This record gives sequence, structure tokens and C-alpha cells, in this order.
Amino acid sequence: MIYGVILAGGIGSRMAKEKPKQYLNIGGKPIILHTIEKFRLCSEFEKTIILCPEDWIEYTKELVHKYIKKTEDIVIIKGGSTRNETIQNAIDFIENEGNLNNDTIIVTHDAVRPFVTYRIIQDNIKAAEGYGACDTVIPATDTIVESQDNQVVSAIPDRSKLYQGQTPQSFNALKLRELYRSLSEEEKDILTDAAKIFVIKGEPVYLIKGETSNMKITYPYDITVAESLLKEKKDA
Amino acid sequence: MIYGVILAGGIGSRMAKEKPKQYLNIGGKPIILHTIEKFRLCSEFEKTIILCPEDWIEYTKELVHKYIKKTEDIVIIKGGSTRNETIQNAIDFIENEGNLNNDTIIVTHDAVRPFVTYRIIQDNIKAAEGYGACDTVIPATDTIVESQDNQVVSAIPDRSKLYQGQTPQSFNALKLRELYRSLSEEEKDILTDAAKIFVIKGEPVYLIKGETSNMKITYPYDITVAESLLKEKKDA
Repeated sequence: MIYGVILAGGIGSRMAKEKPKQYLNIGGKPIILHTIEKFRLCSEFEKTIILCPEDWIEYTKELVHKYIKKTEDIVIIKGGSTRNETIQNAIDFIENEGNLNNDTIIVTHDAVRPFVTYRIIQDNIKAAEGYGACDTVIPATDTIVESQDNQVVSAIPDRSKLYQGQTPQSFNALKLRELYRSLSEEEKDILTDAAKIFVIKGEPVYLIKGETSNMKITYPYDITVAESLLKEKKDA
Repeated sequence: MIYGVILAGGIGSRMAKEKPKQYLNIGGKPIILHTIEKFRLCSEFEKTIILCPEDWIEYTKELVHKYIKKTEDIVIIKGGSTRNETIQNAIDFIENEGNLNNDTIIVTHDAVRPFVTYRIIQDNIKAAEGYGACDTVIPATDTIVESQDNQVVSAIPDRSKLYQGQTPQSFNALKLRELYRSLSEEEKDILTDAAKIFVIKGEPVYLIKGETSNMKITYPYDITVAESLLKEKKDA
């Protein structure tokens, strides 16, 4: 079985004044709704699990009911204290449903990447089924500079071997759980990227071709870029 | 002596139909003019050398005369077949002026990064004078993924040690020339980044803190982002 897993933030703070980026509007609709709709285009998903800060669960439920008619296959639960803990919460949910076995695949995706495509999700599903893990990437556009001491350049690695990580990252869920549970607390702190857990443990992670447009909305001006991308798509 | 070196493209093709990005307008003025104006705020520069495709030299001269009153310290000459050859053309020009010696510093900068700041240029000058070479960078925002075979992830390096390269890159001009001339033709093909020549040869390159806003205008939607950045600055 295949589950969509949309990462919309972990444990929230009641003190946080700003609305998390995934709830801001682009094209008159919250970013997270654009993302959810991309997942719902793929009939392979048993369910799509949305993990968000506890304080935002009710709000997210309201949004989903406002914008989407058929919501039985959408689950909204709270995230964990880290990105990896959040993913583990999704796997716990699948386990509680009785659907965690050797063939269970999760397609994990940032809520703030609303321009993911049907093709990217399909490629993720196929690669995770075939190989156990995959990561969506685009070739690095910037020169990447390495510095061990934050003062002097230690290396400028060959850019043709470098990629910028996007999402989805997709995994055999049981394999990811086993590998994650085998980590020490110290390793857990360092390995903030789920794909890196596979890499560190010597398990292959296949590359899936992303898209420049599959951008992450992080900075305020990303909203402007996202609006213009939406407009381009409408005009095309 | 200190020279500004603005890289606005190498040998152009008469077949190229599109106008190079540096000549597109933002805020009603060509991008390259915004960049030139940032350099002219720094009185340390003996001259600012602009290197552009041969076919665009006359056009660039017209633009400079249209937008800038005092143009005696601006030089417009043709670029080379590669980025490094273009920089060598600038050093040749300085040599022909009789100003190439042990203390000559060049501050090389992409014409398509119009939001470079006075602070960044000053930091570049000081570091190049003190240490011989420096590179402007910001901490890497994306996860960087390495693949040796373009199929499977070979490493996901620790992001806290990684930076995205911007410009300016600033150098002791004579040192850069010596190092460049010591390269084999094969090395010249690989070392497209001037700072990397120093790194490969074991010479220190200091990091200068860049800015997210010091963006490179590469894609069409970067123009939209640039316009909104300009507007923010005006509103601030």
C-alpha cells in the first residue's frame, strides 16, 4: 500500500505569532491545499496523511473541508519534534491501521512545495517500490563552496556531481523505521534528512528528476515567485 | 591599485536572438547599469572594467553614456572564450595601463547580480588586500546531494559546512595570473571558477558574507523577484 505523507510542521508553539507559510494564499488558495490537490490526482494513494503542528490541526481540517469535497482519504494528525519524528508519526498511523508491512511505501513531501507534478510523484512511487528509497533532486545551479572552519574555503566540489535536494523523498516505510530505530540519539540529532539515514547505512537511494518549478516557499518573496509561476501555468 | 571587473559575458554569437539578461530592465533601467552604479559608489576603484560579448560593446557604451554622467573611469572591452579568459582580458588591460604589480587587486562580479551592496564590496577589497583571494558566499539553503553516477546518491554532505557561491570574487591580480598560467589546458577546462584555481593550488581563499538578496538573474522569473526586491528597497 502507498501512502502520501505531507509534512506541514512539527510541534508548534502557541507563542508563534506568524502564520506558517503553508497556510498563506497563492492564487487565492492556501499553499497546503495546492499541495494536497497534487497528491489527490494520484489514485495509488490509500490515504494522504498530513502532519502539522498540534495547534493548527483544527484549522487545517477546516481548510480541507472548505476546499475539498471528498475527504475520507485525508488524515490530519500532529507532527513530531523533528522532521524524522514527524515521519515516524505517519508510520505509526499506518501501523495502527494495520497496513504496515514489507510493501508499504510512503511518499513524503514538503507542504510548502505546491508545484510538485504528477510525473514526479509517479516516478517516486515506482522507484520506492523498486529500490526501497528515492530522493527528488535537480542539478545544482549555484557553485557550492565547502568550508570546514567558516573562514577559508576548504573545497569547491565539482558541480556536475551535485544536486539540490527537493521532495518528495519516498521510502519503504518498514525499512525506514528499522533504520531510524537503529540510530543512536546523537545520530538522530545529526540525520535531519530521512534519505541520509539510508545513505549512512549503506542503502541505495535513487535519484528522481525534479523540476526548478518544484520550489520550496521559504522567504516572503518566494510568494511573489509562486504567484507568477501560477500565472504562467494558467496562461500556458 | 584596485579595479572593478564586471563580467557581462564572453564571446557572443551573432546568431543569438535573445537579448542577454544583463540588458533587460528592472525598475526601468538595464540590470547591468544597476550593477555598475554599485561599483561607482566605491571610490577605491581606479577604474571599473566591463567585459561583454564583442557584438554588445557598442550597445553597452551607449547605455553607459545614456545613464551615467562621468564615464572616464568606466572601460568597456570584450570578454574571452571562458569566464577565466574574460578575467585574463581584464588583467591584460590593467597590464597595458602599466598598473599590474604585486598590490593590484581585482574585484570580479557578475553583471547579473545587481543587488550587491557597498558592504560586500568593501569586505572583498579588504580581504583580497589582506589575504590574496576571497569569495562571497551565503550558507547553503537547500540540502545538497552528491551522486557520482547520476543515478544513486553517493553522499549527503553536512549542510552546515556548505555555502552557495555568489560574487564578487576578489583576487591579487598578479597571483591569479601566475596560477592561471601554471594550469594545463585540461585543468583550464575544468577550473571554470577562478577561486577554485586558488583552492586547487593550495592558496587560501577567504569567505565573505554575502546576502540572499545578492541574487543572480538567470531565469525569466528571477526578473519578477528582482522587481519585487527593488520595490521593497524603495518602500523601506
